[in-house]
Amino acid sequence: MKGSKYALPHWVVLDRSLQEWLREDIGRGDRATQALGLGDGAAAMQTSQALWIAKADGVIAGLPIAGRVFYLLDQAVEFVPQVVEGEFVRAGTPIAQINGSFDALLSGERVALNLVMRLSGIATATRQFVEKIEDLPTQFADTRKTTPGLRILEKYASQVGGAVNHRMGLDDSAMLKDNHIVAGGGIGPAIAQVRSSLPYPLTIEVETETLEQVAEALTHGADIIMLDNMPLERMREAVQKIRAHNPRVKIEASGNVSLETIRAIAETGVDFISSSAPITRAPWLDISMRFQST
Amino acid sequence: MKGSKYALPHWVVLDRSLQEWLREDIGRGDRATQALGLGDGAAAMQTSQALWIAKADGVIAGLPIAGRVFYLLDQAVEFVPQVVEGEFVRAGTPIAQINGSFDALLSGERVALNLVMRLSGIATATRQFVEKIEDLPTQFADTRKTTPGLRILEKYASQVGGAVNHRMGLDDSAMLKDNHIVAGGGIGPAIAQVRSSLPYPLTIEVETETLEQVAEALTHGADIIMLDNMPLERMREAVQKIRAHNPRVKIEASGNVSLETIRAIAETGVDFISSSAPITRAPWLDISMRFQST
Amino acid sequence: MKGSKYALPHWVVLDRSLQEWLREDIGRGDRATQALGLGDGAAAMQTSQALWIAKADGVIAGLPIAGRVFYLLDQAVEFVPQVVEGEFVRAGTPIAQINGSFDALLSGERVALNLVMRLSGIATATRQFVEKIEDLPTQFADTRKTTPGLRILEKYASQVGGAVNHRMGLDDSAMLKDNHIVAGGGIGPAIAQVRSSLPYPLTIEVETETLEQVAEALTHGADIIMLDNMPLERMREAVQKIRAHNPRVKIEASGNVSLETIRAIAETGVDFISSSAPITRAPWLDISMRFQST
Amino acid sequence: MKGSKYALPHWVVLDRSLQEWLREDIGRGDRATQALGLGDGAAAMQTSQALWIAKADGVIAGLPIAGRVFYLLDQAVEFVPQVVEGEFVRAGTPIAQINGSFDALLSGERVALNLVMRLSGIATATRQFVEKIEDLPTQFADTRKTTPGLRILEKYASQVGGAVNHRMGLDDSAMLKDNHIVAGGGIGPAIAQVRSSLPYPLTIEVETETLEQVAEALTHGADIIMLDNMPLERMREAVQKIRAHNPRVKIEASGNVSLETIRAIAETGVDFISSSAPITRAPWLDISMRFQST
Amino acid sequence: MKGSKYALPHWVVLDRSLQEWLREDIGRGDRATQALGLGDGAAAMQTSQALWIAKADGVIAGLPIAGRVFYLLDQAVEFVPQVVEGEFVRAGTPIAQINGSFDALLSGERVALNLVMRLSGIATATRQFVEKIEDLPTQFADTRKTTPGLRILEKYASQVGGAVNHRMGLDDSAMLKDNHIVAGGGIGPAIAQVRSSLPYPLTIEVETETLEQVAEALTHGADIIMLDNMPLERMREAVQKIRAHNPRVKIEASGNVSLETIRAIAETGVDFISSSAPITRAPWLDISMRFQST
Amino acid sequence: MKGSKYALPHWVVLDRSLQEWLREDIGRGDRATQALGLGDGAAAMQTSQALWIAKADGVIAGLPIAGRVFYLLDQAVEFVPQVVEGEFVRAGTPIAQINGSFDALLSGERVALNLVMRLSGIATATRQFVEKIEDLPTQFADTRKTTPGLRILEKYASQVGGAVNHRMGLDDSAMLKDNHIVAGGGIGPAIAQVRSSLPYPLTIEVETETLEQVAEALTHGADIIMLDNMPLERMREAVQKIRAHNPRVKIEASGNVSLETIRAIAETGVDFISSSAPITRAPWLDISMRFQST
Repeated sequence: MKGSKYALPHWVVLDRSLQEWLREDIGRGDRATQALGLGDGAAAMQTSQALWIAKADGVIAGLPIAGRVFYLLDQAVEFVPQVVEGEFVRAGTPIAQINGSFDALLSGERVALNLVMRLSGIATATRQFVEKIEDLPTQFADTRKTTPGLRILEKYASQVGGAVNHRMGLDDSAMLKDNHIVAGGGIGPAIAQVRSSLPYPLTIEVETETLEQVAEALTHGADIIMLDNMPLERMREAVQKIRAHNPRVKIEASGNVSLETIRAIAETGVDFISSSAPITRAPWLDISMRFQST
Repeated sequence: MKGSKYALPHWVVLDRSLQEWLREDIGRGDRATQALGLGDGAAAMQTSQALWIAKADGVIAGLPIAGRVFYLLDQAVEFVPQVVEGEFVRAGTPIAQINGSFDALLSGERVALNLVMRLSGIATATRQFVEKIEDLPTQFADTRKTTPGLRILEKYASQVGGAVNHRMGLDDSAMLKDNHIVAGGGIGPAIAQVRSSLPYPLTIEVETETLEQVAEALTHGADIIMLDNMPLERMREAVQKIRAHNPRVKIEASGNVSLETIRAIAETGVDFISSSAPITRAPWLDISMRFQST
Repeated sequence: MKGSKYALPHWVVLDRSLQEWLREDIGRGDRATQALGLGDGAAAMQTSQALWIAKADGVIAGLPIAGRVFYLLDQAVEFVPQVVEGEFVRAGTPIAQINGSFDALLSGERVALNLVMRLSGIATATRQFVEKIEDLPTQFADTRKTTPGLRILEKYASQVGGAVNHRMGLDDSAMLKDNHIVAGGGIGPAIAQVRSSLPYPLTIEVETETLEQVAEALTHGADIIMLDNMPLERMREAVQKIRAHNPRVKIEASGNVSLETIRAIAETGVDFISSSAPITRAPWLDISMRFQST
Repeated sequence: MKGSKYALPHWVVLDRSLQEWLREDIGRGDRATQALGLGDGAAAMQTSQALWIAKADGVIAGLPIAGRVFYLLDQAVEFVPQVVEGEFVRAGTPIAQINGSFDALLSGERVALNLVMRLSGIATATRQFVEKIEDLPTQFADTRKTTPGLRILEKYASQVGGAVNHRMGLDDSAMLKDNHIVAGGGIGPAIAQVRSSLPYPLTIEVETETLEQVAEALTHGADIIMLDNMPLERMREAVQKIRAHNPRVKIEASGNVSLETIRAIAETGVDFISSSAPITRAPWLDISMRFQST
Repeated sequence: MKGSKYALPHWVVLDRSLQEWLREDIGRGDRATQALGLGDGAAAMQTSQALWIAKADGVIAGLPIAGRVFYLLDQAVEFVPQVVEGEFVRAGTPIAQINGSFDALLSGERVALNLVMRLSGIATATRQFVEKIEDLPTQFADTRKTTPGLRILEKYASQVGGAVNHRMGLDDSAMLKDNHIVAGGGIGPAIAQVRSSLPYPLTIEVETETLEQVAEALTHGADIIMLDNMPLERMREAVQKIRAHNPRVKIEASGNVSLETIRAIAETGVDFISSSAPITRAPWLDISMRFQST
Repeated sequence: MKGSKYALPHWVVLDRSLQEWLREDIGRGDRATQALGLGDGAAAMQTSQALWIAKADGVIAGLPIAGRVFYLLDQAVEFVPQVVEGEFVRAGTPIAQINGSFDALLSGERVALNLVMRLSGIATATRQFVEKIEDLPTQFADTRKTTPGLRILEKYASQVGGAVNHRMGLDDSAMLKDNHIVAGGGIGPAIAQVRSSLPYPLTIEVETETLEQVAEALTHGADIIMLDNMPLERMREAVQKIRAHNPRVKIEASGNVSLETIRAIAETGVDFISSSAPITRAPWLDISMRFQST
């Protein structure tokens, strides 16, 4: 099965952002919660129970992150998922139960929900693309069009939806586009120049629009060849040419990818189809938090 | 005219995020640009020209921020908007011209574009809601459902689209919802408790679902009364009741706001209609960056 | 009762400053404590008891913050207040008992004491102003003249002393002073311009010196009118005029506020009297830390 | 001449705090200035002139820091001191002229003024102590009782007022107090333990209350001996004893230092008299900023 | 030619560390420079000239970084390299001329020199390994054994010395060692598991000690096979086996790499030989800074 | 015994660096560990045992820091030293046992090992110098030539090796070198200028090359006199001259210090011999981490 594992980095990597986001929302202090939580001291200790309920159908992503948000406010909060990360749920499904201090629950509510709604929206949209090609060997991939500051999380959601991640930044793989190729004096010289300063485990991908460019990229040892906006017929030809030359070169198709076109593109035999759509076009999955009487 | 001014905080407030986002994308270094920019030293000095072109119709938002992203990479980059911030453009319109070092243009491209595409998407969607009620005194407002880390920018885009901002965080106004009211022992005691610890220029908003709650909020001096998910008829009654009691109390309608329903809601006479839709449901406005031959 | 609740934001907001302040004092390491705490390993484990004792009469403020300072050094430290936050104590009164490792006690002593001495000084001075008008409906308020970096804490101390906070920064309310009014082309246009970009729950305060300005501010919908340095007679007139026009407009008096003048100002009927004196002129309340023999 | 030079560290050390303090005040944006400064673009470019005027007699300290605050907001601001740092001025004296964009002047006004008012207050109070002993070889020194986050700046103001700084933190000198001496097993063993882990250019100061302790500290090689709260007669004896033993050991007097007592203490012949009073008890020096018509 | 380009990331990535390092050395202020630079104001403006001179033979690395250190202190400093980055110089060679304020030169001296001495030491040692195999196709590579906080810079120096970088962190390539393979249930399952969550442009390297492991790694599609501590004979066999199976699989030799053994290892035909020696064992290249009389 | 205590500052000072270093290595996530640790949930919980084994003879330094690295990843990790900090061990000696989650062990391995290998290398080299003069009263000292970002830790290792630290930065002591003396107008005026702005517990060291300079430094009250690169005979003379004038002035010898020359230098009677060699020239002590079957 494709994309069955969802990899989050260690919290030491993510905590700074989560704390920054809590501070963005809390500002100089949550006026309502502070005032009500202090009265006679009792309320401050008062624990509450809340339930998160999906208000639309979709794939849930981000529950471990929501749990961490509450943990950073108060280590005693219990955040208990009611569904499995990546599960498709119907509107009305309880997805998490939260027990903890009133203060932590209200102070973390918006940040935690905003994250899970955004990430579940991405996972849901991604799943739709993935399902179109589920029975084919082609994989669906994301791009670098992600919300600034959220790349790790949005790419995580993309995984949860069933996609495989493309590179995470400008540094973990080299992609040669038009401008690089012009600046480098052609595909061959550009590959050579980049290879000479690239950490050797890293790969080079070349963007191509014509079969001549495909041939040139092949000759000069590109690790990945991207077929950019090619008509299906040309794409098929390119795939055959590349497979014949070297079966380990990876082939990515890009451009004009939609739920309508993805299957035909996959049937050309490419390894990966990349699209920013689930990240740049997906609505958030609506989720509400309901406090339970105690 | 409503929302004619777009207020961005001083760069001393925003630069840290912009730099963090550049580091997120650049990681340990832009492999391709570095390699090609160094070769013989000439390329490093080589300046390029690029054009940003809208690939869909929409309202442009975020150009000053994009300019700042490039400035933070290289103070010599010229980012010259070709349209006015907030202008509605057709697909194909050039929206900015950028002149500067090849290195700065490629290193900043993705972050700057991601921001402007996201913000223009929000402004575009906001404008649609705003236009539905343009001839009425009611204003359209946003919510706290914003992408973590981007609240200031997303609320700025909301302004550019013609909305008025709701509160910016938990600290610059107090909103009493169900849970607060229960915890505080009723609307009256909750307002009193919060008022006693609130900086005095700040306002208190109370969420209401029934006319009884509206009456209670009025009696205890709420500054803003939110009519949450009320049927139109009840909303109209609430507006009359509030106006009769005190014409300075602001009235906000929330819930079930869509392009289809917004006009009817506005016609009840409320001051503000808030909805998260333009921020949580808007697709990014597609924009491409084309390098120009030199 | 006025100012009975003291609102501190969540620790996620304050911890960064507290840690920074510990690092400011500890620098590259506490030379004496490190050396003595390490010898044979025994001293390092050795727990100590210390008592904080007020050395002057005053209102105690900041105990929860002191507790957090020690907690950030060592979660095992017990900081047990011996008085209630906001209590007036006589010189010689024990105000807190601290049990914990010698190392944590000595490393945190100066930062914790400096904070509580400063904050208690503010609370003590504030209380003197507040007591002068305790039986009147007027409230005493602070200003933005606070020590850079300590605004949240100093305004908290102001609350503990019985004051109500004025705005917390340039962003949670708009105050139009002389320069703004000149730049904006008069009170009316300035209010209109600011209102158009202001988040709608936020209020606008206008500084006035004459009754004409008061009238203009009233007409254009100022939420708060500040009577700046007015003679008492004119102040009384202004209050009447404002109340007659709209009883919800808040009235603030500012200028020449001292323990001698505050009562007469309050008797004009203004809602708030603001003064920076307790923050800019109060001496610290002296407190000593005594280690107890064990 | 004593204390004729005022040493500020390189801006790379201070800028982070100055920026943090600007962000504390500006928050999510200066509502009034933003709105008024944007209108039609003209105001944004409009430069203003402002004058800082002392509203009380005192010693001015902090002008270079104020200049830096405005520089961090806008490198084009000209901050032109009208008096020399450390100069004593009368109420009404113009102390600085500021030319620059309206936006920078209003956004930085409060932070810059708060700093200079606080620092000038310290310098003024320090000068009073220093003048009492100006003709004697004894120097006046500060302590570690400083506002958290402002130690470098407050100790700088102390220098401007004519004092010599005591140690800057727990790490640049070792002070052995009661608790350290008890924990270390007596003055001798404590000095030996600390000396063994102390960077060798650093000095050890020992707090003493009796002549026996003075003798012990002398015998074990203390670099500085503090006479804590000793009666004048005993102090004189201690000075003689120390001078006879080793003329390079520095002697500090501490406790009960006031404008009334300082001269008598100095006449015992001690090298330094330390007191926290100018930092913990000085009111801020009032300074106002007046915009000039243009 | 191998390794002819030296790739440094954009300064937006490095500046934070450089500033942190300046603060580490400057602490609360450079006591000597501050005092001498302030006197009458003249010295502060006084510009100086200094020359950096190599005190031993070696390869120079880090000059652009040194220039940036001074730039961050004072943008007016001119740092003019007298040799080309990567050049081998003899003891006594002037390697850089620096013109600028006395204050910037003395405040940045130690940090800038420490960096260039450390990096030149690495480049020099690397060059010795590289020269042993210069005429062979095998490349010399570094490892993740780098000084914490300096990985980007130390790997940059490694490039300057002629090596190719191995992966930069745990995230830009997956290396499966003993423990991973045991935890994953064998080479095949471990590769499959990692591949399923790995961004697709990233590669998987497998550490092998036996020919059986080599065969297994080959079968399951490892991108890079590391021959760990193998005898030369077995290494040769492994190379043949891998080349026969797939000529694009990269082969790395590791273990027992020294100036004596490297050539024999390279002659087995491996693509890369990795060793931490130049980073963990190289002495710094001594460089002195001499001020020139003016 | 000299240098028997090893002083580390409180973790509040060091944690930020340790976390930064973990993020440097982990980047956007440990690809291998994440993938293998998630599979079915079992592996994530799986605890492992690992042993650290010295692969060369040397003095072990840094174990508490390694323990903290793992603690910051997972508070449940047990890091159990098998030797005493500062102990000399033979190759093959187990130096620490680590029990904890597989994830924490693999994520922290490289950072923790890199630190302990680097610090142990410094301690080992330092010990060699120290042993040469163990029976003499002279102490061995380090310098400011330390790896940027690691000064506190490298100077700690220097202590563990038996050295005494020289000053920690430019701020905790003033060292007057050639350039300062020229700028200050001679040794006397330079000392006077610096003394006037120096916190009084801090000391002034003067670098001298001739006996005339020594005399001048003595006359003007230098606290420490450094004999820079003097021939042994002149050094002996200088020592006699200084002792005769004032036995408390400390004498440091610097320049041409090697294992061969150190004893002869010490025999001139200087108090301290400083050398950067153990920090700038020591190879790392090799240590390996072996997972144990469970």
